[in-house]
Amino acid sequence: MANVATATVQVPVVSRTRSATMSGLAARVGTLLVQAPHRKGIVSSLAQVLNGHGATLLDSNHYSDSAAGMFFQRIQFDLASITSDHRAALEWGLREIGLQYGMAWRIWYGDRMRRVAIFTSKQEHCLYDLLIRHRAGELGCEITMVISNHPDAGPVARHFGVPFYLLPITAETKPQQEAAAANLIDSAGVDLIVLARYMQILSPRFVARYPSRIINVHHSFLPAFIGANPYRQAHERGVKMIGATSHYVTSELDQGPIIEQATVRCAHRDSVDDLVRKGRDLEKQVLAAAVRWHLDDRVMVHAGKSVVFD
Amino acid sequence: MANVATATVQVPVVSRTRSATMSGLAARVGTLLVQAPHRKGIVSSLAQVLNGHGATLLDSNHYSDSAAGMFFQRIQFDLASITSDHRAALEWGLREIGLQYGMAWRIWYGDRMRRVAIFTSKQEHCLYDLLIRHRAGELGCEITMVISNHPDAGPVARHFGVPFYLLPITAETKPQQEAAAANLIDSAGVDLIVLARYMQILSPRFVARYPSRIINVHHSFLPAFIGANPYRQAHERGVKMIGATSHYVTSELDQGPIIEQATVRCAHRDSVDDLVRKGRDLEKQVLAAAVRWHLDDRVMVHAGKSVVFD
Amino acid sequence: MANVATATVQVPVVSRTRSATMSGLAARVGTLLVQAPHRKGIVSSLAQVLNGHGATLLDSNHYSDSAAGMFFQRIQFDLASITSDHRAALEWGLREIGLQYGMAWRIWYGDRMRRVAIFTSKQEHCLYDLLIRHRAGELGCEITMVISNHPDAGPVARHFGVPFYLLPITAETKPQQEAAAANLIDSAGVDLIVLARYMQILSPRFVARYPSRIINVHHSFLPAFIGANPYRQAHERGVKMIGATSHYVTSELDQGPIIEQATVRCAHRDSVDDLVRKGRDLEKQVLAAAVRWHLDDRVMVHAGKSVVFD
Amino acid sequence: MANVATATVQVPVVSRTRSATMSGLAARVGTLLVQAPHRKGIVSSLAQVLNGHGATLLDSNHYSDSAAGMFFQRIQFDLASITSDHRAALEWGLREIGLQYGMAWRIWYGDRMRRVAIFTSKQEHCLYDLLIRHRAGELGCEITMVISNHPDAGPVARHFGVPFYLLPITAETKPQQEAAAANLIDSAGVDLIVLARYMQILSPRFVARYPSRIINVHHSFLPAFIGANPYRQAHERGVKMIGATSHYVTSELDQGPIIEQATVRCAHRDSVDDLVRKGRDLEKQVLAAAVRWHLDDRVMVHAGKSVVFD
Repeated sequence: MANVATATVQVPVVSRTRSATMSGLAARVGTLLVQAPHRKGIVSSLAQVLNGHGATLLDSNHYSDSAAGMFFQRIQFDLASITSDHRAALEWGLREIGLQYGMAWRIWYGDRMRRVAIFTSKQEHCLYDLLIRHRAGELGCEITMVISNHPDAGPVARHFGVPFYLLPITAETKPQQEAAAANLIDSAGVDLIVLARYMQILSPRFVARYPSRIINVHHSFLPAFIGANPYRQAHERGVKMIGATSHYVTSELDQGPIIEQATVRCAHRDSVDDLVRKGRDLEKQVLAAAVRWHLDDRVMVHAGKSVVFD
Repeated sequence: MANVATATVQVPVVSRTRSATMSGLAARVGTLLVQAPHRKGIVSSLAQVLNGHGATLLDSNHYSDSAAGMFFQRIQFDLASITSDHRAALEWGLREIGLQYGMAWRIWYGDRMRRVAIFTSKQEHCLYDLLIRHRAGELGCEITMVISNHPDAGPVARHFGVPFYLLPITAETKPQQEAAAANLIDSAGVDLIVLARYMQILSPRFVARYPSRIINVHHSFLPAFIGANPYRQAHERGVKMIGATSHYVTSELDQGPIIEQATVRCAHRDSVDDLVRKGRDLEKQVLAAAVRWHLDDRVMVHAGKSVVFD
Repeated sequence: MANVATATVQVPVVSRTRSATMSGLAARVGTLLVQAPHRKGIVSSLAQVLNGHGATLLDSNHYSDSAAGMFFQRIQFDLASITSDHRAALEWGLREIGLQYGMAWRIWYGDRMRRVAIFTSKQEHCLYDLLIRHRAGELGCEITMVISNHPDAGPVARHFGVPFYLLPITAETKPQQEAAAANLIDSAGVDLIVLARYMQILSPRFVARYPSRIINVHHSFLPAFIGANPYRQAHERGVKMIGATSHYVTSELDQGPIIEQATVRCAHRDSVDDLVRKGRDLEKQVLAAAVRWHLDDRVMVHAGKSVVFD
Repeated sequence: MANVATATVQVPVVSRTRSATMSGLAARVGTLLVQAPHRKGIVSSLAQVLNGHGATLLDSNHYSDSAAGMFFQRIQFDLASITSDHRAALEWGLREIGLQYGMAWRIWYGDRMRRVAIFTSKQEHCLYDLLIRHRAGELGCEITMVISNHPDAGPVARHFGVPFYLLPITAETKPQQEAAAANLIDSAGVDLIVLARYMQILSPRFVARYPSRIINVHHSFLPAFIGANPYRQAHERGVKMIGATSHYVTSELDQGPIIEQATVRCAHRDSVDDLVRKGRDLEKQVLAAAVRWHLDDRVMVHAGKSVVFD
């Protein structure tokens, strides 16, 4: 299996990028995301644990879904107020509350940047968009690699100094190709996989390996026009707006939790090609937003839907 | 059958409304809508017929659908330039070209206002919206009647001086109720039926009687969430935008040619009730736009889709 | 002075409205809004005071403006957890913290509905819109009166069962007219004044009497097109979008803190009348949003700008 | 003067680009744009001239500005129907009608692509956007050069195979720098100059040289926030939406005919940096739209405003 990857990997010419403009502020902030069944006492218990380990609260937002009986919270705290040594203790304390309240939680320390891998195919607009935004400092992450089943994206990745791996795929080699990709991802300690118009359907096995860690963009306003050729479908139906959707990937095609959607007007005079052109702008917009929010620890998933703190 | 209608009709207290602010301009304009398979010579043939009967051209817009091989044109001409006596002759000329080119066409003389009937049920926001816009001069038509299967809309219609007819409906009385409605509509010479959140599915027989003359609003971004409770469906899917759609009614539910669509952002914190509230604004907007464009002779239907000249 | 009012007041035929659909939920919630210079300890001090008086926290959102060094918080608590007797004590406690931290705060108990007065002139679209939304349960308030300098709005108010007061105005009678209005407002215990296309400029004296309690809609995308005839100004400049703005009224014309804005596309073919028509929809939308957010205690003002918790 | 240019020009490594995906369709179409005072007979005179030279009409759209008494028309015709030899004769015929009716007109034959020069400074998002769209076939033109007063854009231009010219500027060298730019532009036969966040104000002399041939993007919703630092101005005013505007450059700063505008929501929590980030997306969108419409011969200017045929 490793052979497949080795054979096609191109030697990266540039070392790992780090956004020069990544704000110093983000690097000094820790973020705790919490969800739990609604129960009295959880807010103050959380506050006590954080305070108990010296974490100074910077910002906090709740959201209660009364219909689902669920409680969601995003807490940002000052990393300067809690030494690295105390992080393990804090997490230990959170684990205790977690068990007590049936609470799911996730913590992120801003002094480590998330590591991102971008998958792409022939269309390059989303790839360019992410790389340009990254260079402009919009995305607080390292972009560790671009993986594609076509060579086209190679010069783009190189232009931005990002390692490029060519992993061609056929129906027969799909298991090996995915294994090679997983190997690259795991070796590089990748935290988030972004499918930037990657025109392959990932196997349930691959998807299961990275739960809520793969973001895709679908070129329609889901749940309308699931599957192939959504712009053609839209043209045939004669809609007056088209859309795009970014979502976490699950094993069911185009059914994962939606993170962001956008729409734009179209008209009878728009050909399928016009819809494709207009749609590209939407795709870039919703994919970049989803990636940014994920990297900012603003997104939680519950019951197939997303909660996005803004 | 007539009994059903007679029994429930309330005597209108106000005579037929005529928008005082309806622009005098529109009253002096004739509009010709044409569609035909693309063929050389049709444009100049049309121009010759119009010129030949003295019609001064005011505005003209083409649209060629090269994929479908169809040609669409909207021509506005000065009514003052063509006397009433010459209209029959003009139409005779158009009929000839129509046969020659396989052309479908429709002509409207602005000195006669279209006559509109509004169907509604319990929800009154679209009804109010249309009546208020009409009074403000946004809709160049007469609103001849409001028909409802519930009494709630009665005071609203009366407030605007529009005759109100209560036609209750059950599964058993549906044929009679529709016959009574058709009777009222045909007696009043109604040109356009607007379903302003009328919560009944019209029978194919009724629909077939008024082709491209019934406009409905569906409270979703079609083709997403067809059928009942679209806001609940949207909430369950966790979409980040909701929409509304106005369309001509055909015998297939929610499948008619789309005239206008609009969307608005929503978020995890929006309950179904919030979506209903946000959706009401969209419904008013897309229904009013569709009605206005229809009344302005801007909409043509071909192959299940609409061409909207703007 | 009182004479002016007495002479023109029409006897209301309907008692005060109360929205039947106002959610029972809102009636059981208390909301505390707080703003203060950023200082450590304020969050926990607030939590202690609320907890100390038995108030069960339902929701809490912070916002820190690091540039301005300001801290804003919106806290919702369960009214059932704090008896009416304890409210005075709670407020006493808040007053103490307020002094300590230089904190401005405002508390509202949902079991009392806010009382609203609507001012209008000849244009009725915003008036209708607010009254229809109120009846649909979108606005959790009592609409206590409609005041106008023209008689046109009378039948509209009566249709919705809202008392109507006709207070004509001339340059000479402006002080008396405003005094009569203030008298009506203060007698009725009005909490919020909504200017629904009221085409008079309120005197600084009147404005000063109701700080952050008067909401206006301006028919442009402020700060573009301040002053008279903004749609004409927009047409002359040839803009491709027009807008509308809702804001709190201050003594400087069109300079108050902006609460909400919206825009819509326009084109070369839109006449001033078309812009007026399109703009009406925006005006309704931004005014209704501002009123709803104010009534939900989501808006705070600091340094000429608004913080809107969503 | 020429020295300035010569000294700083870098040798282009790639020959002139030609979009491979530029539709063959556009290459076979001629477009005539016409404006004239409204007068009877002009439409048929134009049709006669076109027909007389064998030009087969493909599409035609009128717009009558009744307030201004002006008439605008865009006519597309089949280039195959008119040989190169007959073009001079057709233009001669148009010149005659032009004189007769006081008509301004412009003709473009799609078998020649327009030649574009992009001016930029340090910010690269609009530059990237135009070059990526061009490569994707969205812009039917040749991009002949990128001119900048900073070296940063050099690698970007080179990545897309576009010649790059570095023309630094100071208050003292401005006349020489502009002369060098004009020299490059005129030598290359440039048809359109696009200012892609070029942070220099062009001299009236330079502007006058290229009337309605320079397109700029201003990072605000004009006429709000004219001049420097519009995002800072917007933040200080506390607006709830920001915008961007593309327009033809005239000698008055930010006063040229607007071609396109777009807006996006913002909130109290958006810092100036957030507005800058959100605004970048708008800037790309409105600049690209303006360039595309100009290249498609959809834009005419009259009395300081633009007519955009869509």
